[in-house]
Amino acid sequence: MEFYTEEYFMKEALKQAKIAFDANEVPVGAIVVSNNTIISRAYNQTEMLNDATAHAEMLALSSAFNFLGAKYLMDCTLYVTLEPCLMCAGACYWSKIGKIVIAAPDTKRGFSLLNSNVLHPKTIIKYGVCDDEASTLLTTFFKNKR
Amino acid sequence: MEFYTEEYFMKEALKQAKIAFDANEVPVGAIVVSNNTIISRAYNQTEMLNDATAHAEMLALSSAFNFLGAKYLMDCTLYVTLEPCLMCAGACYWSKIGKIVIAAPDTKRGFSLLNSNVLHPKTIIKYGVCDDEASTLLTTFFKNKR
Repeated sequence: MEFYTEEYFMKEALKQAKIAFDANEVPVGAIVVSNNTIISRAYNQTEMLNDATAHAEMLALSSAFNFLGAKYLMDCTLYVTLEPCLMCAGACYWSKIGKIVIAAPDTKRGFSLLNSNVLHPKTIIKYGVCDDEASTLLTTFFKNKR
Repeated sequence: MEFYTEEYFMKEALKQAKIAFDANEVPVGAIVVSNNTIISRAYNQTEMLNDATAHAEMLALSSAFNFLGAKYLMDCTLYVTLEPCLMCAGACYWSKIGKIVIAAPDTKRGFSLLNSNVLHPKTIIKYGVCDDEASTLLTTFFKNKR
């Protein structure tokens, strides 16, 4: 039995999303993992930082770069609770991140809507890990907002 | 005769690109202008910050948000010496920036290669202001690198 499963790490990203939820931020969380170690954790902070670019993935990637001191994140995996937007996918491209594991798809602003090779050709993508939990959190958030 | 022309502001962005050049960074500069006032200036700092996402536009946009305390940058213009990549175009989308003035096109990684509506529908785009100066700076930089 493996301890460090994709579900294990996605649940850590979900913890970040829940922090966002409690802070009245759109509940998206992200972590970066290198060799089964979480090297960065972040949640969406667009309201708190008053910066429309402060998405969870951007903050997690910058923090991972800072931690590793590496030019690229080829040996890392990004776990994110919502499919990255174009901006964040572009950031993933520049980071040459090895793998992206996504919980919920974003049918409005997800990068995959573009039908174009936005990511680095070597980046592996996986969808649907803890999809239900991530989606429920987002749905609840936007329902409460109305 | 108008003082605050697009050339005037692009030359300010070029000053930022030259700072990058002197710091051995890919020479791209950006400024954000609101009501003829420069509210943020930035240059590419991917090497210095060891962060592949630290493009001039990202830094200039975050700084502009911070300065204005506004949720969006609809009344602002971004002047940038090289066409934004997808990440930066995505950031422009979220910022709802009013106008983007670009010096040199980026035929490799420019957002316009996608042939898709990446930017906010209300964002106005203009190319070619001080194109020669911006392009020469980039060409010289990469020639020196070889």
